[in-house]
Amino acid sequence: MSQAPSAIQPRREEDFPEWYQQVIRAADMAENSEVRGCMVIKPWGYGLWENIQKQLDVKFKETGHVNAYFPLLIPLSYLEKEAQHAEGFATECAVVTHHRLEAQKQPDGTTKMIPTGELAEPYVIRPTSETIIGAAFARWVESYRDLPLLINQWANVMRWEMRPRLFLRTAEFLWQEGHTAHETEEEAIAETKTMHQVYAEFLRNHLAIPAIPGEKTENERFPGAVNTYTVEAMVQDRKAIQAGTSHFLGQNFAKAAGIQFLGRDNSRQFAYTTSWGVSTRLIGTMIMAHADDDGMILPPRVAPNQIVILPVTPKPDTRQEVIDACEALAKTLRTHSFGNEPLRVHVDKRDIPGGARNWEWIKKGVPLRIELGPRDITSRSLAVSRRDVGPKGKEIMAKEDFLQGVTELLQDIQDALLKRATELRDQHTQKLNTLEEFKAFFTPKNADKPEAHGGFALMHWAGSNEDEETLAKDMKVTIRCIPMGDEYAEEGTCFLTGKPSSRRVVFAKSY
Amino acid sequence: MSQAPSAIQPRREEDFPEWYQQVIRAADMAENSEVRGCMVIKPWGYGLWENIQKQLDVKFKETGHVNAYFPLLIPLSYLEKEAQHAEGFATECAVVTHHRLEAQKQPDGTTKMIPTGELAEPYVIRPTSETIIGAAFARWVESYRDLPLLINQWANVMRWEMRPRLFLRTAEFLWQEGHTAHETEEEAIAETKTMHQVYAEFLRNHLAIPAIPGEKTENERFPGAVNTYTVEAMVQDRKAIQAGTSHFLGQNFAKAAGIQFLGRDNSRQFAYTTSWGVSTRLIGTMIMAHADDDGMILPPRVAPNQIVILPVTPKPDTRQEVIDACEALAKTLRTHSFGNEPLRVHVDKRDIPGGARNWEWIKKGVPLRIELGPRDITSRSLAVSRRDVGPKGKEIMAKEDFLQGVTELLQDIQDALLKRATELRDQHTQKLNTLEEFKAFFTPKNADKPEAHGGFALMHWAGSNEDEETLAKDMKVTIRCIPMGDEYAEEGTCFLTGKPSSRRVVFAKSY
Repeated sequence: MSQAPSAIQPRREEDFPEWYQQVIRAADMAENSEVRGCMVIKPWGYGLWENIQKQLDVKFKETGHVNAYFPLLIPLSYLEKEAQHAEGFATECAVVTHHRLEAQKQPDGTTKMIPTGELAEPYVIRPTSETIIGAAFARWVESYRDLPLLINQWANVMRWEMRPRLFLRTAEFLWQEGHTAHETEEEAIAETKTMHQVYAEFLRNHLAIPAIPGEKTENERFPGAVNTYTVEAMVQDRKAIQAGTSHFLGQNFAKAAGIQFLGRDNSRQFAYTTSWGVSTRLIGTMIMAHADDDGMILPPRVAPNQIVILPVTPKPDTRQEVIDACEALAKTLRTHSFGNEPLRVHVDKRDIPGGARNWEWIKKGVPLRIELGPRDITSRSLAVSRRDVGPKGKEIMAKEDFLQGVTELLQDIQDALLKRATELRDQHTQKLNTLEEFKAFFTPKNADKPEAHGGFALMHWAGSNEDEETLAKDMKVTIRCIPMGDEYAEEGTCFLTGKPSSRRVVFAKSY
Repeated sequence: MSQAPSAIQPRREEDFPEWYQQVIRAADMAENSEVRGCMVIKPWGYGLWENIQKQLDVKFKETGHVNAYFPLLIPLSYLEKEAQHAEGFATECAVVTHHRLEAQKQPDGTTKMIPTGELAEPYVIRPTSETIIGAAFARWVESYRDLPLLINQWANVMRWEMRPRLFLRTAEFLWQEGHTAHETEEEAIAETKTMHQVYAEFLRNHLAIPAIPGEKTENERFPGAVNTYTVEAMVQDRKAIQAGTSHFLGQNFAKAAGIQFLGRDNSRQFAYTTSWGVSTRLIGTMIMAHADDDGMILPPRVAPNQIVILPVTPKPDTRQEVIDACEALAKTLRTHSFGNEPLRVHVDKRDIPGGARNWEWIKKGVPLRIELGPRDITSRSLAVSRRDVGPKGKEIMAKEDFLQGVTELLQDIQDALLKRATELRDQHTQKLNTLEEFKAFFTPKNADKPEAHGGFALMHWAGSNEDEETLAKDMKVTIRCIPMGDEYAEEGTCFLTGKPSSRRVVFAKSY
């Protein structure tokens, strides 16, 4: 059986990392800039981020949070207060040292700008905002009556990355960071878990990604955290992506920043704080999870456009009539809603060859394409193409039937993407018991494809931090999480140390 | 007649700049941070910005624009390409020179972070993004078919301010910056004017600010622009605030960045570009325009909450009943809409004294406060207080009447704020003809109040750039704009030079 040519070269199975770059290019979602490690998020990629923002923001507000905005720059002295945190981010901080430029005329007539106005205390561009928000919280909190503080910030952050990759790992990225302060440890832990669950549900229901929720081991915790909860997605090369994290910070940052309050017993106490975040990395995760060899496939819930209407205009004299019919259809569709939002519908009226136009939207991953021509107007029908099922997804439908069923059709696509991703995850998740099995699972079968390996290994574990580090170094495999859920609770013995264990953990290679 | 005590000390007429700071503090909208010139935007201030964003974003999309995101950092070499632009921003650029920190243990046991990893080419944090977006446009545009590019970015920018003032002038601020590229000069000028009008209408209809739209003189143009359009608001101390600008950039930035395309005639041509922006400065403008001696007064269109419901619970045994009635009322109100958005209603259930609670919302400027107690449940009535009319604005209303009329009531408040601001503006705008009149208008009448002066002077003008600079230096008065509209067109002679003039310009002191 010969394969049809694919729009993306190379195919996934040939070179997954390169395929990923090519999908982003073909879908026109982002590109590298001349600023080291920084990307330009193009309108199609940013439209996706806007929907993620809007939908997550609703969930944050439903759980009692409000948005605020804190300074981009962090004084070095703030970082110095929490040693573990400072060391965790020290190697990736962009440092501002001057506050003006001087234009120097060069002998060749050009102008050169020279930094001047050196700062007495340099600043770093926030890699994350625990320290600067902690300083604000310290000012805001006086008594237990001022707690809890439930704040979220939508912002850009910067972590100087040595090996940047579009969306997954860029020097600058966009994210949200929740920061909360509480009177009691219990309340702060409950908050950490609530937001962890918000992420897991958002990934599942909005992004169609069945990420595994769990705790991080000590080695993999956020610098300065007492506990880190994560959602770990499996993507199509069977690697894991940490898609979102929620941290219980104990009193560590409260002590560093001085977030103290007068308690109910009239004693001065330190607050318990949390922080939690997801970023534009979610877009990279979606691409690796859902795209195929023809380009992006977007989950309808977050697609910038869920439906694109393509007027078929073979003759100039019927062109206007067809375009009017398409606009009218778009208008009707926009009165329908999906996930509590009006349908996002675009009519592509550009006068370019139909095949090229069609392929453009395939590569961009629009869930539904509708072709409508002169004969369809007469017969009150439409050609509907589902992106998720490929060439066989094209169907002629009566217009009325389509309108009546469009919401279910979109939900069906959403469900199908989740189902496919869940099957992939389950197919490549295995309970293993011995070091030999473990090694075989993660050893590439084929020297030409160094990336190919087993997937998620569920292992009994009772090793030390050093054992973890050795596995990470020798096999590039880490514990992604200690998963929640009864299905992982089980008595057994650690595959490495033979010590008793009562729960399996998830090992995988990761981005 | 003795005055009632005011919530804000000092009053506007006593010390306007200090009154402004105190309103912000009383309304809990923002505060200074320890980062020089950078503010923390607190939830009540940020909620206002979220509404401004959401409502402007709709207008940007209606006019064909899409959002995207470009790097925070700009290579110095980009700035060097447009000399005028570079010189315009050189003195206020934060410069990134290093990309890591090294933790150094100090003899006293503390840790000090030292910048290391010096960059071969430093970056500046964007003060505005013409240069970096221009570089992207140069990559994206090949033929006239790729034009127009109609892009907007919501972002933070940084301009190192020597005399920062919350919202009005901060080192870091939030804004949107539109950047567009066009095939022809006419099209780019039309875009510049369209967005200028979008701003003028938004200020009038959403922020209740009757800003005067006009062109800037050459002296006051954006560095590198061919023409700058502005909207100039008068605030309560009669000074002007430049609230938004739209720039026609000609081919200046296209030439600097190399935005070239193959034209319809097959020749290589430079695009014409525009840029336009408004920022969190709009919040400062609203405060100075609308607040009074009791605190903020919010235009209902953008208020974070338009209505706050205050349960009156004199006795514990009816407390729950009252709260339930308040929640039910809030739920009903949220099904109503204003300006195409569901009403934003908050029930303040905190168990604090009613007077303190009431004053908090007065100071925050919520348009409508509703008190509801046990007797109101029986009588199906409410006490409704309008923030804009002060103590006499309290009225007992039948619940049904209130619900039926709430949208008109909010519109009435919106209109009243605009009317009041328009009256202020018109009352302090004068056509003057001589230098003597001009000097008298702008000379403080009272040595104790150095800020008090006339307002907007409409003058015939035909002076030189140097004449303008002299007036700015000697009298702190500048030409705010050459206003549009027939009412300013009129033959006359320049008050300074005696040369003929066919239009009056607006002179004012400004922020």
